[in-house]
Amino acid sequence: MRVARTVAEVRAAVAEARARGATIGFVPTMGYFHEGHLSLMRQSVAENGFTVVSLYVNPLQFAPTEDLAQYPRDFERDRRLAAEAGVDVLFAPDDAEMYPDGPQAQRTVVSVRGLNAVLCGRSRPTHFDGVTTVVTKLFHIVAPDRAYFGQKDYQQALIIRRMVRDLNFPVEIRVAPIVREPDGLAMSSRNAYLTPEQRAAAPVLHRALSEAAARIRAGERDAGRVRAFLRETISAAPHARLDYAEVVDPDTLEDVDTIQGPVLLAVAAYFGRARLIDNMLVSP
Amino acid sequence: MRVARTVAEVRAAVAEARARGATIGFVPTMGYFHEGHLSLMRQSVAENGFTVVSLYVNPLQFAPTEDLAQYPRDFERDRRLAAEAGVDVLFAPDDAEMYPDGPQAQRTVVSVRGLNAVLCGRSRPTHFDGVTTVVTKLFHIVAPDRAYFGQKDYQQALIIRRMVRDLNFPVEIRVAPIVREPDGLAMSSRNAYLTPEQRAAAPVLHRALSEAAARIRAGERDAGRVRAFLRETISAAPHARLDYAEVVDPDTLEDVDTIQGPVLLAVAAYFGRARLIDNMLVSP
Repeated sequence: MRVARTVAEVRAAVAEARARGATIGFVPTMGYFHEGHLSLMRQSVAENGFTVVSLYVNPLQFAPTEDLAQYPRDFERDRRLAAEAGVDVLFAPDDAEMYPDGPQAQRTVVSVRGLNAVLCGRSRPTHFDGVTTVVTKLFHIVAPDRAYFGQKDYQQALIIRRMVRDLNFPVEIRVAPIVREPDGLAMSSRNAYLTPEQRAAAPVLHRALSEAAARIRAGERDAGRVRAFLRETISAAPHARLDYAEVVDPDTLEDVDTIQGPVLLAVAAYFGRARLIDNMLVSP
Repeated sequence: MRVARTVAEVRAAVAEARARGATIGFVPTMGYFHEGHLSLMRQSVAENGFTVVSLYVNPLQFAPTEDLAQYPRDFERDRRLAAEAGVDVLFAPDDAEMYPDGPQAQRTVVSVRGLNAVLCGRSRPTHFDGVTTVVTKLFHIVAPDRAYFGQKDYQQALIIRRMVRDLNFPVEIRVAPIVREPDGLAMSSRNAYLTPEQRAAAPVLHRALSEAAARIRAGERDAGRVRAFLRETISAAPHARLDYAEVVDPDTLEDVDTIQGPVLLAVAAYFGRARLIDNMLVSP
């Protein structure tokens, strides 16, 4: 596996692979790899002749009050894990390579209106524009045939899909299932922030989602009652501070009143300084 | 020359050309070709193995009050002129091909903040976001190596250059000089709107710019006096209603006070229902 630090290196490696007929798979990440990332890498390696993984903690998607400086990093471990997963190029640029005039000088923004303002967009109003902007940059740098995203970040994946369709990106988006710890906690780099007590409490997110899904499958049709159940369950857990718990349309992310078709259950909560998210697609 | 109506046809033609080693030149247009368009096509044909011209009147860059419905169209003449210029593919999609759910359903917007809000952006606040969004779509459809823009739309070309740099588009932008009528009027599809009397008055834009440039070259350093001269000259012309006349930095489009380096003189005025623009780069 090659580590590329510059746009020019990645482009040269991809051009070489493409010239010998390989399709290009791409997994954009912020590093500190867990099984979720690795499952995406393995899928890309299985489905493409050449796989590029980017490792870049993008300042544009963090608000000034958020955890950019504390975001966990372990480059040597990440490099080893990506190589073991069969990745061909690990693209790990620095800020000067991604934003030559500094992130604040970036004038061009890609924005998926509407979808970027609900759920996580309510407490993180600039987050998704930062994501879509950097993913656009990365798609232009890597020029992949397929790009892989995890369903844990459901809203992000939906927004990227919409961006790809709206802007005619020649990229196919594949979304892979959430990978969970044995007790149900969705894997996340931010789980590293949890104290043992918070870690013990955090599986409430998945438990609440599972129980809400069971109620819907058992006949519950009132989204308001499901929402209330999610909120009460999470709020009652020790160390948990609820951000949101919603029952929404899986395509538009708009609130659902009566559950008549598939819905997305989506939750976010703080455990100490870790803001964790989880979700579940449910069909009645 | 082939006429392509669908994204799939253009992509197939470009892939074929690229497979035989051709570089791809691209000229995005709204049709109703004049010598300005044709000069861009000829330059692209001279510099690339394969040239695609798009002909699409993009509703997203017109405000509801503007001239979308009246914008001049003559497809058979355009087809003949593009073929004569040596163009390989004329991409002429309809609205349903460019915006399958309708232009109003487009949620994703590409925006070059700051640069999109001055000069023409003041009287056309949504215009440049419409341009950058459709050019992004077209770049993703055509995947050109080089794209050609006219300097008549200086602000547009500057915004596209900035977008390409900010978003790492793998496209080189080339900007070609303004093509003028013998009396100095910059060629524009919108000149077709002019009555004979308006047409006779319209060269005042170029005359005012030329005289202002001569004053700067002769030693004038007070941008305010140059601005006042441009405004008075254009406002005094028959049939003219001034929109703006500015002396700005050619890179940032910010107002200049004292002329110490190159400046952009930029003007816009209405002659009847035709809104015409012109500009000139001047070094003291």
